Amino acid sequence: MQRPGILTLTTDFGNDGPYVAAMKGVVLGLAPGTQIVDVSHTIAPQNILEGAFVLGEIVDAYPEGTVHLVVVDPGVGTDRRLIAASVAEQWFVLPDNGLITGVARTRKPAGVWEITNPSIRRATVSATFHGRDILAPAAAHLLRGGDPAALGSVRTRFVTLRNFNPMEDDQGFVGEVIFRDAFGNLITNIAADALAAHPFDDWRVEVAGERIDGIGRAYGDYPTGSLIALIGSTGWLEVAAVNGDAASQLSAGSGTTVWVRKKNGRTTA
Amino acid sequence: MQRPGILTLTTDFGNDGPYVAAMKGVVLGLAPGTQIVDVSHTIAPQNILEGAFVLGEIVDAYPEGTVHLVVVDPGVGTDRRLIAASVAEQWFVLPDNGLITGVARTRKPAGVWEITNPSIRRATVSATFHGRDILAPAAAHLLRGGDPAALGSVRTRFVTLRNFNPMEDDQGFVGEVIFRDAFGNLITNIAADALAAHPFDDWRVEVAGERIDGIGRAYGDYPTGSLIALIGSTGWLEVAAVNGDAASQLSAGSGTTVWVRKKNGRTTA
Amino acid sequence: MQRPGILTLTTDFGNDGPYVAAMKGVVLGLAPGTQIVDVSHTIAPQNILEGAFVLGEIVDAYPEGTVHLVVVDPGVGTDRRLIAASVAEQWFVLPDNGLITGVARTRKPAGVWEITNPSIRRATVSATFHGRDILAPAAAHLLRGGDPAALGSVRTRFVTLRNFNPMEDDQGFVGEVIFRDAFGNLITNIAADALAAHPFDDWRVEVAGERIDGIGRAYGDYPTGSLIALIGSTGWLEVAAVNGDAASQLSAGSGTTVWVRKKNGRTTA
Repeated sequence: MQRPGILTLTTDFGNDGPYVAAMKGVVLGLAPGTQIVDVSHTIAPQNILEGAFVLGEIVDAYPEGTVHLVVVDPGVGTDRRLIAASVAEQWFVLPDNGLITGVARTRKPAGVWEITNPSIRRATVSATFHGRDILAPAAAHLLRGGDPAALGSVRTRFVTLRNFNPMEDDQGFVGEVIFRDAFGNLITNIAADALAAHPFDDWRVEVAGERIDGIGRAYGDYPTGSLIALIGSTGWLEVAAVNGDAASQLSAGSGTTVWVRKKNGRTTA
Repeated sequence: MQRPGILTLTTDFGNDGPYVAAMKGVVLGLAPGTQIVDVSHTIAPQNILEGAFVLGEIVDAYPEGTVHLVVVDPGVGTDRRLIAASVAEQWFVLPDNGLITGVARTRKPAGVWEITNPSIRRATVSATFHGRDILAPAAAHLLRGGDPAALGSVRTRFVTLRNFNPMEDDQGFVGEVIFRDAFGNLITNIAADALAAHPFDDWRVEVAGERIDGIGRAYGDYPTGSLIALIGSTGWLEVAAVNGDAASQLSAGSGTTVWVRKKNGRTTA
Repeated sequence: MQRPGILTLTTDFGNDGPYVAAMKGVVLGLAPGTQIVDVSHTIAPQNILEGAFVLGEIVDAYPEGTVHLVVVDPGVGTDRRLIAASVAEQWFVLPDNGLITGVARTRKPAGVWEITNPSIRRATVSATFHGRDILAPAAAHLLRGGDPAALGSVRTRFVTLRNFNPMEDDQGFVGEVIFRDAFGNLITNIAADALAAHPFDDWRVEVAGERIDGIGRAYGDYPTGSLIALIGSTGWLEVAAVNGDAASQLSAGSGTTVWVRKKNGRTTA
């Protein structure tokens, strides 16, 4: 017998109401035994960028065959598409509004299907809750090993967001904070790879009026309260306060501009 | 071998402490392999109406045999009853304080049993945590396919709340907001069925000093920021701000009065 | 076939970001089918005492063989040790920074192993996320029935916190609040056992300028709003406001001093 599949859920539905549990009930009814993992239900309401970031961070930790159901869907009830994408031997079931960006940024999708088959959805489809009525049944179809081609026709294009790419010039990079975590760490859209051309000590990070000299390694290397820049656990440059809250300390958050400049270059001041 | 059952949990215990995890441990020890789904643990403390609403919203999404364990229990340690109710081929294990109202409003219970059997509970019963010590073992008993009659004697009456029924007169309905969701949508106690006697365009919704003309279909049909009334995903009239937060915009929430009036009728002003 | 094991997770990662889900993915990849239970991810950031308290409260509710993975780790990236401890036929996988205190306070560990084996960790170990890269693989190793000795060498000592022990004198105890739960109940570090030498009516509890006469039994015995002291569901003295929020009412929380004095003795005023 096939082992039941893994489904992860990422939404902006909040942890308080019935919406998430309704989606889970639909999946468990159609694909009994599915192991469900909540990634986050507190993506900022209708913030596609934040959803795309969180989703992109977890992919490498999941085994092949995992199905990721993601609902941050400001366009529900309009003609935006719903898609199922096969990337890195995993499935992504979501609105085609850019949510796939964090995953597809460095991984080429093996295939994308539009979800249109009226027989793979709940009998009554609400105008406001396609997560429960269309996406959950589509995820269950894939969890049961169903053919993706049964969902609808192949798509060759899908929507991506530009925010994952910082600007680059001869002095370095200008990017932005794309996520503030529970510790107040500010995670930027500047990847470690982009900074590897120079020793980490040769960079200077500027954010919210503060300058940080060099890019460090671990929180434990610095005194409590120090503002530091380091490469986080998934390869992004982040700004942190050791045993403190950098976001509060700097009054910074998603969208705050971050400069990473070569030390021998111009400053922004 | 029988597939392990599904247990949902709805409480006001919060997501922060050990209480929910203790209940889960008890269930997993007694009914190994049970699939546990958290519905919400942030029901407002001791708010039975909110618990009853959330529970009522998820029933249709769950398969037969699901056991729903619900603990919003201001009367713990007094002589309020604990019951197990069979409704819609699912089980509801909860204090008899009105929590069943949202489920039983439109579905007749097939049977209700009081939970009194001292051998189906933990060896030591705390005076303040019957969720862990009595209800969790009762739920585990049902998850293992146990006879409900072993829990205690049959009850023919159970407590229901009046708040799910708006007042009706010849001009329409006067109801109230019963839930504010994570998007700030205001869900009322007025059901779509009640409004079906007239075309949706012929109604006017009045709430917190604002008038909304007609009842719409989907968020996507209106410009961002518009205040709209529509039928939500589970059949209740709700008031929403398109891509915004109606609750904040109107300073409204649970208990706010909502008028739904025929357009050719009297207004409240 | 062996039934898949149970893993509980307690962290200060918050419910919002990708960190918890990444740890779960690693475990599910290495120990497929593991049943994962979230205890809390909102331990106050880097608050080891709070993590130790919550963990200690749930142990008795879990079956033998359960693996508890706990990450509150202000020392990540320094030379603090990571350990796996066998206590009460369950496993505890955590940094050796005192998190084990609530569990080991009244239960002697059967064995403690340091986690050092480089082959039981992810291929790339981040300097800032040992929870995902070292502790999750170690937990998966134990969930699959692996030999703890494969993790590293035996330890005979481990770190404990002093905060679980109140001061005692001939008039009673001086302790502190160690947890504020979602209801605003103030749970102290004074255990019921310590108070059993005298009838509960003979004690007076003093906290935040208020005196409470006697130690009661259940919330339901007192009028709404009453400030009461009682023995909570896991055996600690707690201060509660009946159907209210004692923490707000008293402006008290973790660290607030609590006096428990014999009634015929001196008062603090």
